[in-house]
Amino acid sequence: METIKSMSTEEKGSLLRAMCPVPIDKYPMVTLAHGGGGRMMNDLIESMMVATFANDLLNQKHDATIFPSPGEKLAMSTDTFTVNPLFFPGGNIGSLAVHGTVNDVAMAGARPLYLTLGLVIEEGLAMEQLWQIVYSVKEAASSSGVKIITGDTKVVEKGKGDGIFINTTGIGVIVTPHIINPASVRKGDVIIINGDLGRHGMAIMAKRENLEFESQIESDSASLIAMTMGLLEDGMEIHMLRDLTRGGLASALNETTGIADVSLEIDEKKIPVQENVRGALEILGMDASYVANEGKMMVILPEKNAARALEIMRSYPEGKDSVIIGRAMERGSHGVYMVSSIGSRRILDMIAGEQLPRIC
Amino acid sequence: METIKSMSTEEKGSLLRAMCPVPIDKYPMVTLAHGGGGRMMNDLIESMMVATFANDLLNQKHDATIFPSPGEKLAMSTDTFTVNPLFFPGGNIGSLAVHGTVNDVAMAGARPLYLTLGLVIEEGLAMEQLWQIVYSVKEAASSSGVKIITGDTKVVEKGKGDGIFINTTGIGVIVTPHIINPASVRKGDVIIINGDLGRHGMAIMAKRENLEFESQIESDSASLIAMTMGLLEDGMEIHMLRDLTRGGLASALNETTGIADVSLEIDEKKIPVQENVRGALEILGMDASYVANEGKMMVILPEKNAARALEIMRSYPEGKDSVIIGRAMERGSHGVYMVSSIGSRRILDMIAGEQLPRIC
Repeated sequence: METIKSMSTEEKGSLLRAMCPVPIDKYPMVTLAHGGGGRMMNDLIESMMVATFANDLLNQKHDATIFPSPGEKLAMSTDTFTVNPLFFPGGNIGSLAVHGTVNDVAMAGARPLYLTLGLVIEEGLAMEQLWQIVYSVKEAASSSGVKIITGDTKVVEKGKGDGIFINTTGIGVIVTPHIINPASVRKGDVIIINGDLGRHGMAIMAKRENLEFESQIESDSASLIAMTMGLLEDGMEIHMLRDLTRGGLASALNETTGIADVSLEIDEKKIPVQENVRGALEILGMDASYVANEGKMMVILPEKNAARALEIMRSYPEGKDSVIIGRAMERGSHGVYMVSSIGSRRILDMIAGEQLPRIC
Repeated sequence: METIKSMSTEEKGSLLRAMCPVPIDKYPMVTLAHGGGGRMMNDLIESMMVATFANDLLNQKHDATIFPSPGEKLAMSTDTFTVNPLFFPGGNIGSLAVHGTVNDVAMAGARPLYLTLGLVIEEGLAMEQLWQIVYSVKEAASSSGVKIITGDTKVVEKGKGDGIFINTTGIGVIVTPHIINPASVRKGDVIIINGDLGRHGMAIMAKRENLEFESQIESDSASLIAMTMGLLEDGMEIHMLRDLTRGGLASALNETTGIADVSLEIDEKKIPVQENVRGALEILGMDASYVANEGKMMVILPEKNAARALEIMRSYPEGKDSVIIGRAMERGSHGVYMVSSIGSRRILDMIAGEQLPRIC
């Protein structure tokens, strides 16, 4: 896998095609028969899924997979990914579907261990694209330290889906004695994020709307597992973790103050935003605080632990730009405030409807 | 809930509409904004999902749900439901999505405890239909003894989905010391099924194709949990359990002989098929052994336990027509044989492609 990562896109593409376990000449596209419960479905699942994800649990081939409980307290999360387009700079729906769910499990203070994989494929999806997506699932799962332990494949008629939708459900084991929850947040806590905001949402929008920038915007889609486990295993008191996906930082902060008995204040000029992302945001009239990320999280913890947390986070590639962006204060009349770059203080509300549909 | 069940369809419909937690006048249909991560999504999830499924685990409102491990050995299963039409005689996609997954968990010898719920809604789905489906999920979960502990809602543009797709992932705790697995099946074992075959597939086809029969075909969609727990908790040695869903009895038998070192022989005339189902099968040129069921299972176990198993199974409504249909024999040149109603013996192979797409 290391060899593949260091290859050019063309080399990687042609190697991947050669590795595809389904004869692409014979089955260039997914057909309804691949989801009908018969031999063609069995062949697809055996050759592409079971062979690719092979592990002792998946190989049970039963209606349900049996595994020893990994600990006393477990965490479980589910997410269905409907991102459009399926392939974008920095990833595809396969890697996104793994990162999204393993990150969610980790945000509860758990080490993710197992994933289920549910595919809804639209008839006519190129078999080669399906294989690229499946291979990305494998790579992302492997680098996040999780096993795919069971799955399901459905095929719907052309025009009744959109290429592929992927559900992943993850289970993990709690590795911290602290209660990681909005209700744990206290006045005086500081808010850290692990880097620049807005990249995933803007990468998708740029691709979808054919926007051209001097440098291509790449999604930040990434596994946060290594860094989060580094933080949790240090043992320091942490009050809240949340990844900044749909609804962005603004939603994560507002969901926190919907439960916590504090207000949160952030400083706009402390929030890193890449130059090309800033350009895209200005063109589209958007605010980085509302845009989805897929490799960013916030950490809320007692101020005394902030320096140590920053040191740990910055020691991981996904946390090298970690920064304190705000703090928790006595509860005010609103939940979340932002001090703008010109020094004014305004309410940072949750958006009402959708800003960017089909981002994840 | 008991009161609702005893009502006429009209009474039930009007009561359900009155109970709908979302103002249907204001939001007659699901819009993209209901999936955008903002306040409208939050409102929909809070009022319709969290309020309906309320339990101590779901109410954590975190990225992942934390729960104490329910035992030493767990079982997990995932399934995405894409059935068309969404509503059919005997159920709808909501009840089906619960029955399908809890039954799969039980087939591994486990008591299902928790479910996750992932919805992919097509823009424009009537809010009232969504509510009926959500309410059916609640009823089916409650009668199966499982809690919905976390979920996810996505909305895709009109024409990019088909009303609603539902993923459920279930987790349960193993309640038997026996290894329930195709590899456990031995020569001499008998094969029991819990009633007539073909109803779910034919109910869907009749509705989809507007076929009229003297009496309407009702899906057999049902939870098999009570009966299966009755069998497992008796403690008798059981070798194999499988529900007879996509691909029907023929697929379940062939999947078993793909692993077990035996051949299986069934007797066609012992397989119960309802009269109206037989009529539909004849019109469509289909064989009951290949048609999907959603409330039927096969049990393979040592002959000495068969009488006791039948007695237990017949004591539950979902098993009152349980019957022995065949047995395991020394491995022959093929996996599965069927003795037809006129006495000839033929190979019962797995079907190649799809017979009935979008049945589950």
